Amino acid sequence: MGVDATSGHKAQSDLSRHEADHPSSAVAHFAAHEPLMLDSGFALAPWQIAYQTYGTLNKDRSNAILICHALTGDQHVANVNPVTGKPGWWTSMVGPGKPFDTDRFFIICANVLGSCMGTSGPASLNAATQNPWAVDFPVVTIRDMVRAQARLLDRLGIESLFCVAGGSMGGMQVLQWASTFPDRVFSAIPLATGAKHSAQNIAFHEVGRQAVMADPDWHGGHYRLQGIRPEKGLAVARMAAHITYLSEGALHRKFGRRLQDRAAPTFSFDADFEIESYLRYQGRSFVERFDANSYLYLTRAMDYFDLADDAGGKLAAVFKGTKARFCVASFTSDWLFPTRDSRAIVHALNAAGASVSFVEIETDKGHDAFLLDEPVLFATTRGFIDAAARARHLPEASR
Amino acid sequence: MGVDATSGHKAQSDLSRHEADHPSSAVAHFAAHEPLMLDSGFALAPWQIAYQTYGTLNKDRSNAILICHALTGDQHVANVNPVTGKPGWWTSMVGPGKPFDTDRFFIICANVLGSCMGTSGPASLNAATQNPWAVDFPVVTIRDMVRAQARLLDRLGIESLFCVAGGSMGGMQVLQWASTFPDRVFSAIPLATGAKHSAQNIAFHEVGRQAVMADPDWHGGHYRLQGIRPEKGLAVARMAAHITYLSEGALHRKFGRRLQDRAAPTFSFDADFEIESYLRYQGRSFVERFDANSYLYLTRAMDYFDLADDAGGKLAAVFKGTKARFCVASFTSDWLFPTRDSRAIVHALNAAGASVSFVEIETDKGHDAFLLDEPVLFATTRGFIDAAARARHLPEASR
Repeated sequence: MGVDATSGHKAQSDLSRHEADHPSSAVAHFAAHEPLMLDSGFALAPWQIAYQTYGTLNKDRSNAILICHALTGDQHVANVNPVTGKPGWWTSMVGPGKPFDTDRFFIICANVLGSCMGTSGPASLNAATQNPWAVDFPVVTIRDMVRAQARLLDRLGIESLFCVAGGSMGGMQVLQWASTFPDRVFSAIPLATGAKHSAQNIAFHEVGRQAVMADPDWHGGHYRLQGIRPEKGLAVARMAAHITYLSEGALHRKFGRRLQDRAAPTFSFDADFEIESYLRYQGRSFVERFDANSYLYLTRAMDYFDLADDAGGKLAAVFKGTKARFCVASFTSDWLFPTRDSRAIVHALNAAGASVSFVEIETDKGHDAFLLDEPVLFATTRGFIDAAARARHLPEASR
Repeated sequence: MGVDATSGHKAQSDLSRHEADHPSSAVAHFAAHEPLMLDSGFALAPWQIAYQTYGTLNKDRSNAILICHALTGDQHVANVNPVTGKPGWWTSMVGPGKPFDTDRFFIICANVLGSCMGTSGPASLNAATQNPWAVDFPVVTIRDMVRAQARLLDRLGIESLFCVAGGSMGGMQVLQWASTFPDRVFSAIPLATGAKHSAQNIAFHEVGRQAVMADPDWHGGHYRLQGIRPEKGLAVARMAAHITYLSEGALHRKFGRRLQDRAAPTFSFDADFEIESYLRYQGRSFVERFDANSYLYLTRAMDYFDLADDAGGKLAAVFKGTKARFCVASFTSDWLFPTRDSRAIVHALNAAGASVSFVEIETDKGHDAFLLDEPVLFATTRGFIDAAARARHLPEASR
């Protein structure tokens, strides 16, 4: 079986459970009298939001950039991840001299609501019961995530963001920021994203959720009480999702039909092909760092996302009167959020009279390209940020 | 949970188990001294192959057409399926006056080796143990399936096929026929298929297999001995696969983001969207008719398929000297076997100097289009069959 637990799982498991309530990062706590009002009508309290910051907030508080992470991302955008020990997920883009230059800007990244790295979610303790929330946690939306981030900014005394940026589910949050808090966004960079989740994307998410819920170790969501995790189900979910993050071309280039450490097929169900071995590894390593219930909640939030709902179904109306400037980017081989999804955003922004630049980046790396070394993405982002900084009268880059 | 067993499952389950050994169709039995030699080196004996025929074999035995079914198909191509009670899977193409005209041709369709509808496979009883073979059944290849079909034709006294036709895994068998038995094939119609399985397709199959094997009810493959089935795992596998049979466009057209019998999202993990409800139904109904181990074996056979291996890696060499005429068709929205896969076949046939016609059919119905009412497919097939019949001096169509 490829999706069995690996050795060392206990130690990492304890670590990831610890992160859910006591993250290795800053945390803003909101008390019982400071509830977060959710789209579902639920008043979440007490609640907390975990975040990292990089760089220094200037005197005018005008150089803050909010980075929004994707489905299985976290606040550790440019520091070593405390659970995996690996570098932050966007060190290519965030750091000294990088497009999101920590020498010039104050960068904030918060773990999203519903996730499992220190912001309230199903893996967190429910103060009322002193048990994990599990599936009693309210279902959240992208708008709820953004509301939580806004409350964090209030706490940090930041009225207006110089920029809000992110890819995939992070891009959804960027668009939601522009819709919900248009006066708090000077510029916005939604990458590899869409203004709504497509039927096919909902379908893939549903397969993943069913895989988790089919695992008897899920225990109706209350696995933490049993001291167990639905590892096999979550690994299958991750394997299916992982295929959608890549492209047919990249899979062909990287793996093709090559056999894994053998000269001939074994006529068995072993991982004969490199691609099988790779996928099994992806599934196995994911369960070590991510909570299964969080996976259900965050995929659900993406499925529910349809930004046009904010304005009676007219996407252009969502952006009406916005003063923010936008930089939209898509990737040619991204079939999860294909270029037509970005074009729909651009058309709506154009119709709303917004300032928008758009680039479709040629690559075979699929959806995950926004996380990878993509020189055109770096150049585009850098150029957009520099122009926006000039417009906001921020100092030039020193290098 | 969407993938729970439905009522009535016991009755249908008994029925499908019965079909594995005692199918509602003709069966050719091969005794202990008539083994089927497999690519793995295994000598399978005794073994059996279940088949249906339609129409009448002519005196010259020159009007036989072999239809090869796809992954989860069966021999019931143009009669009511004994397990599901539904019409045969290709009634649109096979019948009186249809492109595969049962008034003119003798049509044969056999359940493939490794399947569960009466041809030997993991669901069949192992004569040596009187228990189901389960995972002790040898891993089979597309070439093994074709060898079994050839043995059936020998039994039926049919030396040469007027035509061999099929889509997807059926198309792989068609190509394998032309490679392994070039003198026994007068014409060949491989539809929506490829000469090898791509890395992405292997990846999706591997996800399905892992979903089945992750289900504790799989019992290491020996679930039948436990009187149980890995229903949830197999349902998840089917859900993931089903997405790949459709197209993004068709999913958008048929389902979009429409909610299922409700006015607003429920903020839960219910099947809020029609696409979720549809996928759950697909998973649920599949487990009633298909054996989980057969699913492992047949996906494996497809993964192993790389026709060029028959001739040292050169696809054109596979077809060298072939006298068969070919009709290749692909569908514009098929992303499982995209048009480039069909073009690779056509280029190889051209290089081999073979007679080949090729059509790419415009449709948004995805891979499954070969099973559906596609007028251009009907017209193309009919025209090709009629011309081939004239070349073989078979009588004209009477209507």
